Amino acid sequence: MDYQFSDVINSIEPSFIREMLKLTTNKEIISFAGGLPDPQLFPYEDIKNATNSMFAKHKESLFQYSTTEGHQGLRDWIAARFSKAHDVEVSADQVMIVSGSQQALDLVGKIFINPQDTVAVESPSYLGAIQAFKMYSPKLQEVHLATDGVDIEQLQRVMASEKTKFFYGIPNFQNPTGITYSEDKRRRVADVLKASGKIMLEDDPYGGLRFPGTSDSTQSIYSLAPDNVIYMGSFSKIFVPGFRLGWVIAPTKIITNLVIAKQAADLHTNSFVQAILYEYVKTHNLDEHIDLIKTDYAKKKQYMVEAINTHMGDAIDIYPTNGGMFIWMKVHGVIASDLMPYAIKQNVVFVPGEAFSLSKGYQDHMRLNFTNLDYDQIDQGVINLKQALLAYRQDNPLEAAS
Amino acid sequence: MDYQFSDVINSIEPSFIREMLKLTTNKEIISFAGGLPDPQLFPYEDIKNATNSMFAKHKESLFQYSTTEGHQGLRDWIAARFSKAHDVEVSADQVMIVSGSQQALDLVGKIFINPQDTVAVESPSYLGAIQAFKMYSPKLQEVHLATDGVDIEQLQRVMASEKTKFFYGIPNFQNPTGITYSEDKRRRVADVLKASGKIMLEDDPYGGLRFPGTSDSTQSIYSLAPDNVIYMGSFSKIFVPGFRLGWVIAPTKIITNLVIAKQAADLHTNSFVQAILYEYVKTHNLDEHIDLIKTDYAKKKQYMVEAINTHMGDAIDIYPTNGGMFIWMKVHGVIASDLMPYAIKQNVVFVPGEAFSLSKGYQDHMRLNFTNLDYDQIDQGVINLKQALLAYRQDNPLEAAS
Repeated sequence: MDYQFSDVINSIEPSFIREMLKLTTNKEIISFAGGLPDPQLFPYEDIKNATNSMFAKHKESLFQYSTTEGHQGLRDWIAARFSKAHDVEVSADQVMIVSGSQQALDLVGKIFINPQDTVAVESPSYLGAIQAFKMYSPKLQEVHLATDGVDIEQLQRVMASEKTKFFYGIPNFQNPTGITYSEDKRRRVADVLKASGKIMLEDDPYGGLRFPGTSDSTQSIYSLAPDNVIYMGSFSKIFVPGFRLGWVIAPTKIITNLVIAKQAADLHTNSFVQAILYEYVKTHNLDEHIDLIKTDYAKKKQYMVEAINTHMGDAIDIYPTNGGMFIWMKVHGVIASDLMPYAIKQNVVFVPGEAFSLSKGYQDHMRLNFTNLDYDQIDQGVINLKQALLAYRQDNPLEAAS
Repeated sequence: MDYQFSDVINSIEPSFIREMLKLTTNKEIISFAGGLPDPQLFPYEDIKNATNSMFAKHKESLFQYSTTEGHQGLRDWIAARFSKAHDVEVSADQVMIVSGSQQALDLVGKIFINPQDTVAVESPSYLGAIQAFKMYSPKLQEVHLATDGVDIEQLQRVMASEKTKFFYGIPNFQNPTGITYSEDKRRRVADVLKASGKIMLEDDPYGGLRFPGTSDSTQSIYSLAPDNVIYMGSFSKIFVPGFRLGWVIAPTKIITNLVIAKQAADLHTNSFVQAILYEYVKTHNLDEHIDLIKTDYAKKKQYMVEAINTHMGDAIDIYPTNGGMFIWMKVHGVIASDLMPYAIKQNVVFVPGEAFSLSKGYQDHMRLNFTNLDYDQIDQGVINLKQALLAYRQDNPLEAAS
C-alpha cells in the first residue's frame, strides 16, 4: 500500500551519522564516527546508590505522571548552578527539563519557525539540529565559522532580515570543529542579537568539557544578552546520555510556549530518572565527576593528535581544540566521502566533513571522535586510516601542490 | 522584548485539563478531573528488584546512547505479546518504542499532516491528541461517537475526501466516554479503511483494563486491517506512567518514517527504563499485575457509580463502561463549565464535557476519574459535587422538563 506522507517527511533523509553508526555494530570496525561518551566514565556505583536511596525515600513521585516543566528540585539546582557559573540571575521558572537536548531543538523549531522563515546556522554545523529544524520547513542560511567564532559581518546581514527567526550556534568546543568563540566574538554576537532584536539558540553540550590547564572562555552568550538567548544544556556528556536529560534556560515568555509544545510532544520527561539525577547531584559532587571526564578526554585527545601527526602528519592539518569530543582535520587533496570505502575496507570509519555542510563544503575535512575508544584502538584506527589513505592515493594520485 | 513565535504556537492554548490539574495541588480539593492511575498499584518492589538485578547484569548498555527504534528485547517481547493477543503476525521491526504514547501522536502528526489536510477524530475525543495534531495545522473533522462506536456513515464520508489523512480513534474504554466499539463496528471501520485506502491511528491505552467478568471485544482494528492501521500502546496505565514508555505497531514503511521523525525529536527513548521494563517483563508476569489493577478499578468504578446514583441519581445519566479509568455522564439542565466555580467552592473538580469537543458540544456532560482516589474520597467528592449542583440549581433553576 502507498501512504500519503507529509511533504516535510518526504523531503528528509535519515541522518548520515546514524546510518553509519549502524555499521559500527560490526565489532571489527574501529569507529571514529560516533559521538558517544566513554562508558568507562559513567558513574555506575553512584547512580546505583542514588537509585537505591531514592527507592527508600520516595514512592508515588518516582512513577506517577509529573509536570511538563520538570522536577522542581532539579530546576532549582540547575538555575542556581548556572547563575553562579555564568554570573547571571536565572530563576527556576526560566528552566525547563527536556527529554535530551535534542528535544529542545525540535520544540524551539516548533514554536518559532513558520515555513520559509530563515534560520541561521554555523557552517559547518551539528547535523541533528539541522534535521530537527528541517521538520518545520525553514530556509537554512549558513554563516561561516572562523577559528575564533562565527563571522560577525555575515551574521549581522542574516539577522537584519525580517524573515530570520533565530541563529543556532555551539560556542564551546563545537561539533564538528571543536572551535570555541573568543571573548570578543561572544560580546559581538550578543551585540548583534540586541541590535537586531533577534534570538540565538545557544547549544552547549560541551562547555563543561574544557580540558584542564586551558583557559578558553566558556561564558554563555545567554549571560551577555539574556532577553535574546535560549540556552540549551545537556547531561549526556557530563553524566550519562541514556537518561535523555537536558535543560533549557530562556526568558519566561519563551518557556511558556516551550511548555505548551512539550505537553503536546511527550507530556513530560521521565520522572524516575529526573529523581535519580536530583538525588545524585544532592549527594555527590558533579563537578568532581566532570573533572575525571575532562582529564581523561584531554589525555585521549592529546594521544590521538600525536598518533595522527606521527602516522599522517604530512597529509593533514588538525584544528586546535581545548575541549569537547572531536578532532576536526583537513586532509590534503582528499574527497573524504570517497575515502570512506577505503576506510571501511581497512576497518575504520569517520564522518566526512560535507555531512556537516548544507552546501557540500568541507569535502576535504573529516571529524574524528576520540572519547569512546581506548588507546590501542586509537593507535590501530589511525594506522588503519593511514592505510586507507595510501590505498586512496594510489587510485587518486595527488596533483602537484600549487 | 516581543518574540516572533510561529503561527502554529500562537494559535494554540494550553490544555484545559493540565491547567486544572494545577489546582489539584491544593490538598483540600478532591479531583475527579485527572487521568492518573492509582499509585498504590505501582509495583514498587518489583521495579526495585528488576532495577537491582539489571544493575548487576549490565553496565554500558544501561546508560549509553541507544537506537531510535528502541530496546531490541522489548520490541521482540511486544511483537510476540501483541501477535498472540490479537491473532495477527507482527514482527519486531514493526514495533517502535516511544517516549510515552503522547509522542506517537506528535510523530504521526509530523509524518502525515500537511497544513489544511483533514484529520478525522471521534466526538468527543482525547484532548492531548487534538493538541498534538494542531501543531501541524490540520482541519479537524469530528465524527460522532455512538455508544457502540464511531458513526460509520459519517466516517465513510470523511474518509472519502482526498484531503483526509487519517482517522484518530480510541476503540476501547474511550477517553472521555468509556465507550467501546462493538465487534460489528470494528469490522465496519476496517472495511471503511480498506475501501478508502486511508489509515487509522488506533490509540489503545485502556484496552488492557477490561474489568473482570465482562466480555466486550478489545480486538484491535489493526488486526483486521494491518496495512491501514497505526496501533499505539502504552505502559502508563498497566505499569507506571513516570517511565514514559509506549509503543507503536505499524507497517514497516510507516515505521521507517516514524524513526526519522523520532531521531529529530529526541534521538531515542530513555535506555535505562527500557532495560528495567524488559527485566521486569522477563522475570514477572505482567498480566498478573494487570489483573490486580483491573480488579481494583472495577470495584472503584462500581462504588463510584453507586455513590453517584445514591446522591444525585435523578439528576444524571451515566454511560455504561466495562473498563478504563473514567465515568462519563450527562447532568440534566446543567452547563458543566458553569458548574465548575460551584464545584471548586465545594472542593471538588471534574472535566466539563465541552473540553473534549471541537464544536462546544457535550456542555451538559462531565468526565469523572475514579482510579486515583480512595473510597472515602469518592464518597466525599460525590457529596461535594451534589452540594455544588444544589447551589448551582438555586442560582439556575431547572426549566420544566419537556
